[in-house]
Amino acid sequence: MLSKNTVKFIKSLHQKKFRKQERAFFVEGAKNVTELLLSNFTVSHLLCTEKYQEENESLLSSFSGTKILLKPKELESLGTFSTNDQALAVAEIKENRSLELEKGQLILALDDIRDPGNLGTIIRIADWYGISKLLLSTNTADIYNPKVLNASMGSFTRMNFEYVDLVKKLEGSGLPIYGAFLEGMNVHELKGTAEGVLLMGNESNGISSELESIVTKKLTIPAFGKAESLNVAIATAVLCDNLRRIML
Amino acid sequence: MLSKNTVKFIKSLHQKKFRKQERAFFVEGAKNVTELLLSNFTVSHLLCTEKYQEENESLLSSFSGTKILLKPKELESLGTFSTNDQALAVAEIKENRSLELEKGQLILALDDIRDPGNLGTIIRIADWYGISKLLLSTNTADIYNPKVLNASMGSFTRMNFEYVDLVKKLEGSGLPIYGAFLEGMNVHELKGTAEGVLLMGNESNGISSELESIVTKKLTIPAFGKAESLNVAIATAVLCDNLRRIML
Repeated sequence: MLSKNTVKFIKSLHQKKFRKQERAFFVEGAKNVTELLLSNFTVSHLLCTEKYQEENESLLSSFSGTKILLKPKELESLGTFSTNDQALAVAEIKENRSLELEKGQLILALDDIRDPGNLGTIIRIADWYGISKLLLSTNTADIYNPKVLNASMGSFTRMNFEYVDLVKKLEGSGLPIYGAFLEGMNVHELKGTAEGVLLMGNESNGISSELESIVTKKLTIPAFGKAESLNVAIATAVLCDNLRRIML
Repeated sequence: MLSKNTVKFIKSLHQKKFRKQERAFFVEGAKNVTELLLSNFTVSHLLCTEKYQEENESLLSSFSGTKILLKPKELESLGTFSTNDQALAVAEIKENRSLELEKGQLILALDDIRDPGNLGTIIRIADWYGISKLLLSTNTADIYNPKVLNASMGSFTRMNFEYVDLVKKLEGSGLPIYGAFLEGMNVHELKGTAEGVLLMGNESNGISSELESIVTKKLTIPAFGKAESLNVAIATAVLCDNLRRIML
């Protein structure tokens, strides 16, 4: 049975203020919920259809939180999906903890990424390219926003992330810091080993001047046509692909 | 003055049925409208604020269609943007004409791309990578959908496109046809000249089996992490970037 309090609780999690207060967030859809259950997040509530339960019997056998069987219409009234005949789950928000900046890794730093769809897509890209450490400026979108989680297609479960003052975190780290600029080195000519931090800037303004001063390697994605720019998620993918290519 | 008939006409263009019937479409926002006015599209109506008019005086001096000055609130009531203090323009739809498949070029073919945002983003990517010919399967989203045009950031004005049966169009063309598959050649190891057709498939199902038979070079974007897939626009960008890289 779905109580009024549970409905109220889940609906409150659409807003950042209440996610912060309750230290909880929700994800929806089979893919995201399954990835969440397989991850090290603590899942408190699973709301699912009989269909999802039948298709994920062994996964659910080890689930110890509150499980509630619902009809698609009920699921849809709780989340953001217009159709959801599978599942929705609530989990605990992780503490914001300091990430170690080790050598030999590729780390992604995001400065002021405002659009939740962009952030989610970037997380999926990071996961594809084997990046598991994400540094987020404090004015970047909330990673627990449902739009971010949905766009990440479950990849958020594999990210370690820290909301932090990027200048303080990165200056003096001794790591190469890559950033995309108009007048940088053609990324197709890049040589060497890909380690360090790839820094991506705001959708409209790019990398802030304060952060520009700590970039050690300016990169440019060569243009062959007349588009003025690429979307930040697209640029992140192309840069990650080039950085991983030189590791061959 | 904005007549009731003009309002009705522009609002009808939100729907594909009426765009087809009226042979017209609209774009909104300063960037898209300016690119449209600079292009070879025939613009019938320009609805703009005094601000836009002042900032684009020389461009507007050669405009011979109907110009109507409006307040932002009025503009916003006509289009899809929640804020628009600049402009909206109506132009004629181009005839669907057969594109020549020349050698020595990179051409993009899209099979069953359903999401208008994806199609618009792909058009912007094509424009960045100097691709100006676009073949679209007849079940691909309508390029004149406002969401497609907005996501393309004006790049649609530089595309030549044809809605066509892709198998009929491409089989026997003698051109290399590249497609993304799980078991293809690592795109980082690609050598040679980039010419031919890059074929991208549906968001959920990829390239259809019918089209797979005409692909001459199967490519794979190497994965380094655990994400199951990349969004089709992201994959298009990475493949275009690699195809252009080997032209260095």
